[in-house]
Amino acid sequence: MSERQGISRRGLLGAAGAAVATGVAGYAAHSALTTEESQAADNSGPVEFHGAHQAGIVTPAQDRLHFATFDVTATKRDAVVSLLKEWTAAAALMTAGRDIGQYGAVNGPGEAPPEDTGEAVGLPPARLTLTIGFGPSFFVDAKGNDRFGLKAKRPGALVDLPHFIGDNLDPNRSGGDIAVQACSDDPQVAVHAIRNLARIGFGTTVVRYSQLGFGRTSSTSRAQTTPRNLFGFKDGTNNLKLEDTTKLEEQLWVQPEDGPDWMVGGSYLVSRRIRMTIEIWDRTSLGEQEQIIGRGKGTGAPLGKADEFDPIDFNAKTSDGTPKLAADSHVRLAHPQFNKGAELLRRGYNFVDGSDGLGRLDAGLFFLAYQRDPRKQFVPIQQQLSRSDAMNEYIRHVGSGIFACPPGVAAGSFWGEKLFS
Amino acid sequence: MSERQGISRRGLLGAAGAAVATGVAGYAAHSALTTEESQAADNSGPVEFHGAHQAGIVTPAQDRLHFATFDVTATKRDAVVSLLKEWTAAAALMTAGRDIGQYGAVNGPGEAPPEDTGEAVGLPPARLTLTIGFGPSFFVDAKGNDRFGLKAKRPGALVDLPHFIGDNLDPNRSGGDIAVQACSDDPQVAVHAIRNLARIGFGTTVVRYSQLGFGRTSSTSRAQTTPRNLFGFKDGTNNLKLEDTTKLEEQLWVQPEDGPDWMVGGSYLVSRRIRMTIEIWDRTSLGEQEQIIGRGKGTGAPLGKADEFDPIDFNAKTSDGTPKLAADSHVRLAHPQFNKGAELLRRGYNFVDGSDGLGRLDAGLFFLAYQRDPRKQFVPIQQQLSRSDAMNEYIRHVGSGIFACPPGVAAGSFWGEKLFS
Ligand code: HEM
Ligand code: HEM
Repeated sequence: MSERQGISRRGLLGAAGAAVATGVAGYAAHSALTTEESQAADNSGPVEFHGAHQAGIVTPAQDRLHFATFDVTATKRDAVVSLLKEWTAAAALMTAGRDIGQYGAVNGPGEAPPEDTGEAVGLPPARLTLTIGFGPSFFVDAKGNDRFGLKAKRPGALVDLPHFIGDNLDPNRSGGDIAVQACSDDPQVAVHAIRNLARIGFGTTVVRYSQLGFGRTSSTSRAQTTPRNLFGFKDGTNNLKLEDTTKLEEQLWVQPEDGPDWMVGGSYLVSRRIRMTIEIWDRTSLGEQEQIIGRGKGTGAPLGKADEFDPIDFNAKTSDGTPKLAADSHVRLAHPQFNKGAELLRRGYNFVDGSDGLGRLDAGLFFLAYQRDPRKQFVPIQQQLSRSDAMNEYIRHVGSGIFACPPGVAAGSFWGEKLFS
Repeated sequence: MSERQGISRRGLLGAAGAAVATGVAGYAAHSALTTEESQAADNSGPVEFHGAHQAGIVTPAQDRLHFATFDVTATKRDAVVSLLKEWTAAAALMTAGRDIGQYGAVNGPGEAPPEDTGEAVGLPPARLTLTIGFGPSFFVDAKGNDRFGLKAKRPGALVDLPHFIGDNLDPNRSGGDIAVQACSDDPQVAVHAIRNLARIGFGTTVVRYSQLGFGRTSSTSRAQTTPRNLFGFKDGTNNLKLEDTTKLEEQLWVQPEDGPDWMVGGSYLVSRRIRMTIEIWDRTSLGEQEQIIGRGKGTGAPLGKADEFDPIDFNAKTSDGTPKLAADSHVRLAHPQFNKGAELLRRGYNFVDGSDGLGRLDAGLFFLAYQRDPRKQFVPIQQQLSRSDAMNEYIRHVGSGIFACPPGVAAGSFWGEKLFS
């Protein structure tokens, strides 16, 4: 406990508990955004933390990301359970726009460290969501050991991702026992959230890696305009959207017949850090760029169509008989029609992490995709893309992760409670 | 020229010229923010690019930063002049919220690369400012050679910064022939701007390093509320503000008597990438944190005072006679009273660049400070801070730069024109 001296765990849980019981719950219930209202609401309000599904999946994509994965250093199951309880209490407070304890105005000599690090004081909730997932290494370590007595509960769908052609993965940007996705319309709020979870985790977890992102590259609601990625193309046109409620059951949420029990209502997250060689892309002709994607750069419309949301016609031919969409175009190879109907809820972010020492921006897409079963969705789609996608000349997958994201948290419960019961 | 094939330089300059002559100039003049209006205006409007001083210095600090330094690879003076002309034209367009050329909707087969990379299409100007500065190596190379016939024009105030105690500088995050500071309320807009300048520079310059920042850590106008840095403290309280017009002449803008001519109305920028060991800070008691800064964490008030903007009383003592402000507190050592009246216009940003491989966030403050003469301002202040500041235990300077930022650009002129005439 010496590592954590001064952090009053009871204080923290007490504060969280009290807040949930009184102010926060009422506040959240009062201000919670329904699907319909959410987009109309301004960007400063809170998103309800509790519910059947975790927030941050179909929530209309916020503008900023701070994603982190943690490795558990504790060896006792109890320590992990305590951590998840503390994290959940803190997450409920922070997503409601509250500090997780005192940060400065104390009645006393200030001998303890502040309970909250303070840099988000005075900032609105900014639609903060915190979404948790457990990686394969949480269930079994590299030697196959059953670390926390959870081995038997590892879902079949939580596969170790296979090697894909062209993968150039940095282990320091891949994997992790636990992932937390913080999304917000204010980066300071997202950074504050991850930092305070990291701080609560001192002595139990270490940050494995973290990634900031901006300019959500996929819309997840029909009420959002489609944003652009760093190739300058609209991204998210043919994405699963929160309004597609039937499809979400088919493609996004784990169903009772899928099992395991503790994952029903949850979803699987695949993260890929995809470096874009934008300097080379920028010297590629417009015509080639559009053939690679399969859509017009200005409009976002499928080639040969006028409007962004026109359906793609894969059989369209130009007057001389060549197909309007190249066989190796990205949208063709990624489309459900050529993937046994499989779809994804994409929720990625652009990133620029300075430059790479060779005079190029270290920029790209931090790809995040949620799905019901990666064995039928991400894996086969990416196998096809990695083999044939014309875009491969301009991208490189340099980081990877897969995580089982449990269902939503009921008030009084904690992240992953059913996994441990 | 083969490196730049397809980028129509005449096209670009033509487009920019036309726009400046007609639409853009009128638009900017119409929408230009005056000092008083600027804060009240929403965050999406344009900031006037032309003027006596460069924008981005006293402009009320925007929320996001993309800072990059470039090394010139061209050896001819003419190539540098051409580059600066193209950059200026592009900067005038981008700060007005315009693309720098076609990005998609072309009348033709799309055989050339798009002139604009496209990811900011549809986004508002978001108060983008672009501010340029020239580093010592722009005037003389490492061997002392007069690269572009500018050696005699190097200002005396553009010193090579001395080594400060504790400096741990990474050469790959320091220096640079030319710096461009892009600030905006939208990171995608700031990233787009630097990227398109980098793209125009292909064959003439390479990016030396780039840095993203968020959550401006200093207010530069009395109309802004003071933001918080990653230590959780208000930052910018005692900053030079745009309303301090007399002081700005004394402390910020180069005066005719200072010389050289081409710098009159300009300012010197010192950049420091300062890593904060926030994990250790977070375990420090509140009382100690407040002693280190010299201000209260909640209120931001000087210790012993109630309000953020109360003047600091360096002689205040507690009842047992000990000084309320420790002699090694940051605000004491940095205050003009202990620095021969020297002040700075601070304009830094928080950064989090993932984690450092040791389970810690690579986080801190990207310190940016503008001033009339670094020999009398940044250098002596930092000498004093590096010797004695109690904060040194929690920070490490890991990158550094100094740049001569010329005065503002008149319509029809270009960045640094007087330097070359
Ligand atoms: C840097 C890498 C990538 C870029 C720049 C990119 C870009 C795009 C763009 C511009 C679209 C068209 C607009 C839309 O419908 O959203 C699209 C569609 C799509 N992408 Fe990607 N993508 C990338 C990686 C991936 C990966 C790794 C996958 C999955 C393994 C993927 C799956 C999809 C899917 C499923 C669609 C929708 C296709 C359809 O049904 O029309 N993308 N992508
Ligand atoms: C990570 C590094 C730093 C942190 C966290 C930091 C933080 C702060 C804080 C919280 C204040 C009080 C609020 C205010 O008046 O703005 C302050 C004041 C100030 N800082 Fe820093 N600072 C850092 C580095 C520096 C450096 C490198 C310099 C210059 C060499 C500097 C110069 C000043 C000055 C001039 C003031 C105003 C003092 C006064 O007149 O009251 N700071 N800083």
